[in-house]
Amino acid sequence: MDFSVTILGSSAAIPKVNRNTTSQYVICKNRHILIDCGEGTQIQLRKFKLKLQSVQIILISHLHGDHILGLPGLVSSMQLLGRTSSLSIYGPKGISDFLLPILSIIGKGVQFDLNIVELEPNSNSIIFEDNCITISNFPLQHRIPTHGFLIKEKPNKRRLLKDEFDKTGVSVAYIQKLIQGFDIEDNNGVKVKYQDVTMEGKLSKSYAYCSDTCFTPKIIEYIADVDLLYHEATFLDKEADRASETYHSTAKQAASIALNANTKRLLLGHISARYNDLLQHEIEAKEIFENVSVVKDGDVYNL
Amino acid sequence: MDFSVTILGSSAAIPKVNRNTTSQYVICKNRHILIDCGEGTQIQLRKFKLKLQSVQIILISHLHGDHILGLPGLVSSMQLLGRTSSLSIYGPKGISDFLLPILSIIGKGVQFDLNIVELEPNSNSIIFEDNCITISNFPLQHRIPTHGFLIKEKPNKRRLLKDEFDKTGVSVAYIQKLIQGFDIEDNNGVKVKYQDVTMEGKLSKSYAYCSDTCFTPKIIEYIADVDLLYHEATFLDKEADRASETYHSTAKQAASIALNANTKRLLLGHISARYNDLLQHEIEAKEIFENVSVVKDGDVYNL
Repeated sequence: MDFSVTILGSSAAIPKVNRNTTSQYVICKNRHILIDCGEGTQIQLRKFKLKLQSVQIILISHLHGDHILGLPGLVSSMQLLGRTSSLSIYGPKGISDFLLPILSIIGKGVQFDLNIVELEPNSNSIIFEDNCITISNFPLQHRIPTHGFLIKEKPNKRRLLKDEFDKTGVSVAYIQKLIQGFDIEDNNGVKVKYQDVTMEGKLSKSYAYCSDTCFTPKIIEYIADVDLLYHEATFLDKEADRASETYHSTAKQAASIALNANTKRLLLGHISARYNDLLQHEIEAKEIFENVSVVKDGDVYNL
Repeated sequence: MDFSVTILGSSAAIPKVNRNTTSQYVICKNRHILIDCGEGTQIQLRKFKLKLQSVQIILISHLHGDHILGLPGLVSSMQLLGRTSSLSIYGPKGISDFLLPILSIIGKGVQFDLNIVELEPNSNSIIFEDNCITISNFPLQHRIPTHGFLIKEKPNKRRLLKDEFDKTGVSVAYIQKLIQGFDIEDNNGVKVKYQDVTMEGKLSKSYAYCSDTCFTPKIIEYIADVDLLYHEATFLDKEADRASETYHSTAKQAASIALNANTKRLLLGHISARYNDLLQHEIEAKEIFENVSVVKDGDVYNL
């Protein structure tokens, strides 16, 4: 699958036996990205048969324990298991001061190339880009500086309509030009329009991650039209005051963001450990936005 | 049960899905003691239905990640769940510099009374004592300063032989004196020997914890005659060279220590993740010491 999200942890601050603290494993065009890394993430990776050495990029939203306490153990295990490939970590200011002293205390740091990029609070920019994907950060509103992340496939190349192409006298040497959207003249000087011999490429998909945050419509501009939106829903509607006090969201508030951002599908997570039954979050969200799921550890969502 | 050891993690440096990194929960005369705290220990406590707020004392053997990376999350969860009772942590020099900065980064430290005692390298002394138990540390031999721990019940009080006592003319007011080992005169001036009206109390038990360490007969003097010995057995005999290089032990070496220390029962743990089947450790140890078990997460051993 080109683009998938595996839920490694779906609980809020306090883990439960079957709900670890926050982490997600995203595969996008063969790029392997971990988002947040709560305690026990390396064990969850094994449980769900994902290779920890395949992780190339780690995105950290903020410096609360339930999002970062698995990071030292994960990086340390990568080292112990002989990693040689590089690892990039993008996170808030302070992530180096959290991680590096621990790695020094418990061992000798790491021998592989560890590239830590500290993001400015309230920033919105492309933080990673290659020929296939882009990753942007954008500000969430929580008790401490917190980043949301948007992972997008780059536009897919147009596809050749072979039968139409074969009717022209154009040399195969020009196929790439046509795919790139250029018109070509054939050997007789007849113009061949690229639209006539190619079709649009597969639609590019996008995934937005919003945890932790209070209800803030400001984020809509950053996540408009995403195919899949993960938004925290720590509380139910009757705890809306508590959500507001602690800079978290309710299921209904998350659904309202999804609706207004014109999202195709909504995932809810970071559910407070006080709730044993997650059905009520789904029921409350569905009043506002139909295509919603409350995530569980081990769930895989394909875009 | 007066004295029990629950295994929370039985793996070595790298956790496996069903074998967490090292931690044990010891209940001794209603004192609740956690030994070591690998990543995910707070989740293991929940899994095995032990209350994290019941922990009164934490003993940390050394500052390798697989023995301490669960500590920040555990202490943080105690705080989040409203702990008010005190917590004492005994560990190597440097344990404060590991724990306290993390608690500051991920939150506001703790509001309950957190008492951290840093132990001198190579020391052997009673580090905790009350009217029921003592806890001592003693030096193990590993790549960094590492402490073993010995938990002992204090001698149990003598028990009254009611029928014998009733035959004497001694007032019930003197029962405590007799139990404490004093002879008493009855109202007629006849001496009543405490041995005649009381019997010895229940035998006091002891538990020794030795992880991580290379084979070192020096520890035998500290753990002589313990009822239950936990000794690491990271490797099998064919990896004896690797054990020696990394300052770990083989199952046979652990069994030799148990035999020479006149231990009643031996538990083996800290098994390297390279072994899927633990039977071979038991077979090799049994060649030297019969009463041996390889521990699994969730095992409970009663003394």
